[in-house]
Amino acid sequence: MNAGARQETTINVPENLPVVEILRDFDAPREHVYRAHVDPDLAMAWMGPRDITSRVDHWDARTGGSWRYVSSRGEDEFAFYGSFHELRSPERIVQTFTFEGSPDGVSLQVLTLEPLAGGRTRLRAVSIAESLQDRDALVAGGMETGVVQGYQQLDELLARR
Amino acid sequence: MNAGARQETTINVPENLPVVEILRDFDAPREHVYRAHVDPDLAMAWMGPRDITSRVDHWDARTGGSWRYVSSRGEDEFAFYGSFHELRSPERIVQTFTFEGSPDGVSLQVLTLEPLAGGRTRLRAVSIAESLQDRDALVAGGMETGVVQGYQQLDELLARR
Repeated sequence: MNAGARQETTINVPENLPVVEILRDFDAPREHVYRAHVDPDLAMAWMGPRDITSRVDHWDARTGGSWRYVSSRGEDEFAFYGSFHELRSPERIVQTFTFEGSPDGVSLQVLTLEPLAGGRTRLRAVSIAESLQDRDALVAGGMETGVVQGYQQLDELLARR
Repeated sequence: MNAGARQETTINVPENLPVVEILRDFDAPREHVYRAHVDPDLAMAWMGPRDITSRVDHWDARTGGSWRYVSSRGEDEFAFYGSFHELRSPERIVQTFTFEGSPDGVSLQVLTLEPLAGGRTRLRAVSIAESLQDRDALVAGGMETGVVQGYQQLDELLARR
């Protein structure tokens, strides 16, 4: 913790399950954290590492909807797509995720938001891959930088509300 | 094998991964097997154990689409829903799956169809659950009967074409 100014992001990579678990507290009510995940303009403003910018291709935020966005760093572009399996406001988001550069890879993410005392929120995001190898590739592909910096940007966005 | 009349269904439940792998050969070209999975009338005709009937609530068969169907046995009804993360005709279907009676459960299924000699097709379906416990619940919930009898009904459907 940096004098309380930033929350710590915990990333757990269990040895024997093809899973990544992320734990992160936010200094905002869960309705705000939830909305920052499903509103496309808000989501594009904070997701990923600081040196990329992202734009929505399509974004249909409902149970049974789907999304696609394109991130750029200089002239390089990276596209991602997935489905919203379930949106249960304000507590749970279940979605799929594919990086188009690796079109046979897919993961399932279950995100839950738990209210904490003082109007704060605990986020738990569990990503499940097809195999340990695929999970390790997710982690090796810069996941930690993207997640840590993305959540710092989300802190800043929530503080501006 | 029953005098060659029926294919054998192999269900693998690895000890240390929250995964169920199903392997099954069909005596039909993969375009036919693929279509029987994405056409709602065909899918409802063969899916599940023999003593249930199923009807579509909604079915939007495209990458990013979603589906919901209701199965009945006598007066009991069971509803299921999910998203089509990817439809890649005629070789690959990636979808999510939730039984509404267990609304916090979700699995991801990656189905691939490989052409075999003689116009036959090998199906491989890998279902990934959140945990070993959730995977074991999937298997304990009558998965084997549903899969084995469902594929026998699919054999019969494919033979009528």
